[in-house]
Amino acid sequence: MMTEKKLSGAGLRGQSAGETALCTVGKTGAGLTYRGYDMVELAEKARFEEVSYLLSRGKLPNQAELDAYLAKLKSLRGLPQALKSALELIPASAHPMDVMRTGCSVLGNLETEQDFSEQIDHIDRMMALFPSIICYWYRFSHDGVRIDTETDDDSIGAHFLHMLRGEKPNDLHARVMNVSLILYAEHEFNASTFTARVCASTLSDIHSCVTAAIGSLRGPLHGGANEAAMEMIEKWGSADEAETEIMGMLERKEKIMGFGHAIYRESDPRNAVIKGWSQKLAADVGDTVLYPVSERCEAVMWREKKLFCNADFFHASAYHFMGIPTKLFTPIFVCSRASGWTAHVMEQRANNRIIRPSADYVGPDSSEWVAIEDRA
Amino acid sequence: MMTEKKLSGAGLRGQSAGETALCTVGKTGAGLTYRGYDMVELAEKARFEEVSYLLSRGKLPNQAELDAYLAKLKSLRGLPQALKSALELIPASAHPMDVMRTGCSVLGNLETEQDFSEQIDHIDRMMALFPSIICYWYRFSHDGVRIDTETDDDSIGAHFLHMLRGEKPNDLHARVMNVSLILYAEHEFNASTFTARVCASTLSDIHSCVTAAIGSLRGPLHGGANEAAMEMIEKWGSADEAETEIMGMLERKEKIMGFGHAIYRESDPRNAVIKGWSQKLAADVGDTVLYPVSERCEAVMWREKKLFCNADFFHASAYHFMGIPTKLFTPIFVCSRASGWTAHVMEQRANNRIIRPSADYVGPDSSEWVAIEDRA
Repeated sequence: MMTEKKLSGAGLRGQSAGETALCTVGKTGAGLTYRGYDMVELAEKARFEEVSYLLSRGKLPNQAELDAYLAKLKSLRGLPQALKSALELIPASAHPMDVMRTGCSVLGNLETEQDFSEQIDHIDRMMALFPSIICYWYRFSHDGVRIDTETDDDSIGAHFLHMLRGEKPNDLHARVMNVSLILYAEHEFNASTFTARVCASTLSDIHSCVTAAIGSLRGPLHGGANEAAMEMIEKWGSADEAETEIMGMLERKEKIMGFGHAIYRESDPRNAVIKGWSQKLAADVGDTVLYPVSERCEAVMWREKKLFCNADFFHASAYHFMGIPTKLFTPIFVCSRASGWTAHVMEQRANNRIIRPSADYVGPDSSEWVAIEDRA
Repeated sequence: MMTEKKLSGAGLRGQSAGETALCTVGKTGAGLTYRGYDMVELAEKARFEEVSYLLSRGKLPNQAELDAYLAKLKSLRGLPQALKSALELIPASAHPMDVMRTGCSVLGNLETEQDFSEQIDHIDRMMALFPSIICYWYRFSHDGVRIDTETDDDSIGAHFLHMLRGEKPNDLHARVMNVSLILYAEHEFNASTFTARVCASTLSDIHSCVTAAIGSLRGPLHGGANEAAMEMIEKWGSADEAETEIMGMLERKEKIMGFGHAIYRESDPRNAVIKGWSQKLAADVGDTVLYPVSERCEAVMWREKKLFCNADFFHASAYHFMGIPTKLFTPIFVCSRASGWTAHVMEQRANNRIIRPSADYVGPDSSEWVAIEDRA
């Protein structure tokens, strides 16, 4: 006897689109692992560069390997002149994710991957260069300054803040950036990563894959949630006002960003981590509004809807306390997730079949040609 | 009793990833239909602009609608100055598909889609502008000429050839370009179209979706087959030499591009159409080598392997007879398929759920953190 199972094509939810050794999401035990390592432990103990090394090389680096890797990344921070010129053509009004997408695409013209044997060098270059791309454009278009992107900061997070502000960040800020980059590094077959894998499955080049992924991360259902959360909470002057407003939004059935998740059912393991750091930053800057507002949102959403904060919600206040402009939140996500995307591209290439699903046809059975003079 | 069916995640082959009313591939009757219309009949009777109208608007235009559409496309051929400047930064050595991808991405910075209500205008703009993008870069980087992209040609195909050569094409060439653009316009959930839909499912903007699709079409398993076929057949001086060489390649189990298809089993309905036009062009230019070589390849591959020519194989000789440089073959594919991609983006947006499949985890169950000084 055959049992036919009608699969819902909608969003491929629950359907496997391939194998990965990079990540588990929502499995028993740790809520999120990178190559088997619990993300919470990585966020506590690792440098982001150890995590990106783990993703791209398959193991945590020993001290000599880490030193060499850090030195390599540091040496790759300079922008080619043609890329600087291209970034200078983009107006301040542009969407920063369009700038990231374009910066990556332009790079592919100037430093084209000619053979997959070069992939790891191109990946390192992107990890080193993405903060430079967004900060160079931002400072040029907003402040009229041509910054030097070759700082001597040891970490990608500190490098980013240094370029953005023109001075080295303090240890707390460098630490929070490090944690944030680890939290966002990898998340299995999310939409942007899956975009990168579909592109990789045609055996296209690494810049095409990452450019495509940036385009998907730009979508408000995907990467834009921390910006949307910021725009919401910064309007409110107190926790009580936040509660009143949230209750009104719930009553009007308005979408509230930064809560719930496609895979996690009861909590997002990244939330507790970034929430802890947001609290420390609030104390550091003497905040008495934004953090209490955020905490109240969390409490009300859980009480009313059993909805939990995802990774994005407390990122909003944390980034804000470090003085990062809201429009740069999602580009930071790119600087982190590029490590996951590129590891997936390598994995897809190593065991590839072109990703070419089918579709359920719902159009007309057949249409008859009508000469143009006889058309309605 | 439950029967469990283990689905192969490899390439999602045969798995539905959603619904479409745009296209059928390999169903009984016509081998390829666009909104129910047989592609062979469209290639015989329609203008490409009627097909792109059909895809974007859902019906064939009447004369007044077609006139208005053609006038609109004609008015949208001019490149913004910043896009020209960006294209001028890209060296002649760049991959032309990297140029297309970048051109589309830059356009998204300059003319950003702010709301989905604008989508049709952005789509028309891309259809009008893509030939301008590739020809402007090509002529500037290769010939040092800044061309005027605002020609008065009535069709996209003639416009392309006009910019490439600096003079209006004859009727035969304009006709073949028209047919070729119709043949490549749409093909259901192929990898580049699926890339566009995954990106669209995050509710990202139209330029991100198309930029991503270009990146996938760039892959040699997808859009590059006609270029690869050209590079193969142009090496051979006669049909007999072609047969000897093909036999040798088969014996050495080398990949021969332009044959077979992921969906079609016995023939590609597009082949007979473009083959007929390639033959006419061969007669027109007095060719006695390339067309006979192509025909012999077709005969040998069928005799030896029961493999048939796909849409790409006779496109190689047809484009070559019209004097189109091989490296511009895949960008022409972009100028055509953009009509299909964008129709799919609109369809995805109209009934959206974020495309987020699962993965089979094949990595370590759990990995234990080791302090850096203790790592191997």
